[in-house]
Amino acid sequence: MTQPGAGMAADIAEQPAGYARLLEPTHAAAIARVAAVIAERRPRHVVFTARGTSDHAALYAAYLTEIRLGLPAGLASPSAVTVFGARPDLSRALVVAVSQSGGSPDLAEVVRVARESGALTVSVTNNPASPLAEAAELSVDVAAGHERAVAATKTYTAELLALLMLIEGVRAGDGALPADELAALRALPELAGRTLDDPTARDLAPRYRFAARTVTTGRGYAYPTAREAALKLMETSYLPALAFSGADLLHGPLAMADPDVPVLAVVGGGPGGRAMREVLTRLGERRADVLAVGAAAGTVPAAARIVVPDVDERHAPLLDILPLQQLALALALARGEDPDAPRGLSKVTSTL
Amino acid sequence: MTQPGAGMAADIAEQPAGYARLLEPTHAAAIARVAAVIAERRPRHVVFTARGTSDHAALYAAYLTEIRLGLPAGLASPSAVTVFGARPDLSRALVVAVSQSGGSPDLAEVVRVARESGALTVSVTNNPASPLAEAAELSVDVAAGHERAVAATKTYTAELLALLMLIEGVRAGDGALPADELAALRALPELAGRTLDDPTARDLAPRYRFAARTVTTGRGYAYPTAREAALKLMETSYLPALAFSGADLLHGPLAMADPDVPVLAVVGGGPGGRAMREVLTRLGERRADVLAVGAAAGTVPAAARIVVPDVDERHAPLLDILPLQQLALALALARGEDPDAPRGLSKVTSTL
Repeated sequence: MTQPGAGMAADIAEQPAGYARLLEPTHAAAIARVAAVIAERRPRHVVFTARGTSDHAALYAAYLTEIRLGLPAGLASPSAVTVFGARPDLSRALVVAVSQSGGSPDLAEVVRVARESGALTVSVTNNPASPLAEAAELSVDVAAGHERAVAATKTYTAELLALLMLIEGVRAGDGALPADELAALRALPELAGRTLDDPTARDLAPRYRFAARTVTTGRGYAYPTAREAALKLMETSYLPALAFSGADLLHGPLAMADPDVPVLAVVGGGPGGRAMREVLTRLGERRADVLAVGAAAGTVPAAARIVVPDVDERHAPLLDILPLQQLALALALARGEDPDAPRGLSKVTSTL
Repeated sequence: MTQPGAGMAADIAEQPAGYARLLEPTHAAAIARVAAVIAERRPRHVVFTARGTSDHAALYAAYLTEIRLGLPAGLASPSAVTVFGARPDLSRALVVAVSQSGGSPDLAEVVRVARESGALTVSVTNNPASPLAEAAELSVDVAAGHERAVAATKTYTAELLALLMLIEGVRAGDGALPADELAALRALPELAGRTLDDPTARDLAPRYRFAARTVTTGRGYAYPTAREAALKLMETSYLPALAFSGADLLHGPLAMADPDVPVLAVVGGGPGGRAMREVLTRLGERRADVLAVGAAAGTVPAAARIVVPDVDERHAPLLDILPLQQLALALALARGEDPDAPRGLSKVTSTL
């Protein structure tokens, strides 16, 4: 792997195969077993805990939990437990820790504390032998294989799909995905491959070569995509990227939008995408330079567009992030950076 | 009010008096009554919902809830309910909506839905006659008076103090603050006045006149301060400001730190501040230009410092943000902006 970015490019390219692998009977059945236990225990609410890229997968899962399961869900900071000694009563809670490496000691500590207080604990990780997986009562293996680059790509989307399968399995009750859901998910590997074959994202990289910063935005299921795109741009290209939910952007940060700041807006084909239209109108009034990404990217005012295959908005995060990973990679290379060895970044972060 | 920034300056200066007002028997008793009802109903978990600046007050309250009440707490996005029609079962939950205006229709809708599903609902707002206060079963008036500037300052700290008094009242059981807590809080108006009298923050503004962007960071109780400082800098000076928890900063965004990017680090005198030391060491290795703010600012390697009176780290957010509001104001003026009339910003945002 001597060529800069070759590792990240290989990781990105493996994602359609990763989706297909998780949907195979062995992995799907393992996730269904965990889902069935969760359904049987009937938690009253769900607490997700994660850091970095995995925090965005957890945010997606929190939306799914509220919308699809009708259960309150929130993201908890590990530091309340690990730094301040909080011991919340989690006796009727499901606590889900998401981490590609499973190696962060703070997450394992949160899971241990939650388990002692009676919570049902689940780890979602790419390493089923990790301390995190061992700390949790139940484990989900996202089975993404070894990730070459330090910046997470295929482990992120594997986390998204595993969490989706888990939550839809809980919704079904017995853990098994309903036939229509399974059919929709089985279409994803081919759609993901088609999305990655589209050269638009790579071709757009030169357009942002000299951008000093960027703003990313999305609503609902698309907000984690906006957050993850921002992190990927920062990690690989050192391009400062501010992520806002479309609603928060209107509150104050919109004042920063001007024609010099590219705005990356994720616009899906469902309610979240429709709720973005007011945001795009306001951005247009400020003459912002908008890159629209998503199924509805072709239908909104924008300076550039990446149209992604139209799927249920709930599944769209599995496709929308792909061209944004490609854009981050291409932009890093255009700027002379090696995204496989970003400065100051290590794969396992051991904060307390 | 013709001088640019005069409104924001007046709002900032009123904060010590605002603290004293909330601690007066009338307001304190009103908050204690709400706290007593919450304590009696014994919620199993707490869901906060807010946007913008108030979201940072809610984040502070979520830490307090976990650490001081031992109850799981999370922040919920209004959009799951308002855009995607989520109807989570909140029958054993306390739902707290925080908004200075109380005028955002999405928060009122979230509260209505939560109340229908059996949640105990509380609004925390500067307008007790607002739609949000009317939608909630119980209301807390933060009593900050009319805010002149569009960028929120005194309503933010009033929300912080009201939420602190509420949560400590729930902890006490009967709603009334224990004598030692009350004594500590009664010292705050004078300490806040002394903090605002310190010219250091204003004097530092020229140092950041030509900064292209900044990074803010903190851990635990100080993380909301870092987030709010970033938002204030963006709203008033249009200075792009990326806020990270100290732990998340180590994961990836640290790669962006270099000597050209000022880093604003909130370093308190307790466990959160101690957990920041590794972050500051790593920033030092990257030769970052650090502005340390807080009780322990004098004890860490930094290019500039704003030392704030040393109080319990739990109370520090009521002091640490004050010089950062002054810095945002002074920087906006140094850049020729009028922070009282920021472009693209309105006081009430009516997203759905």
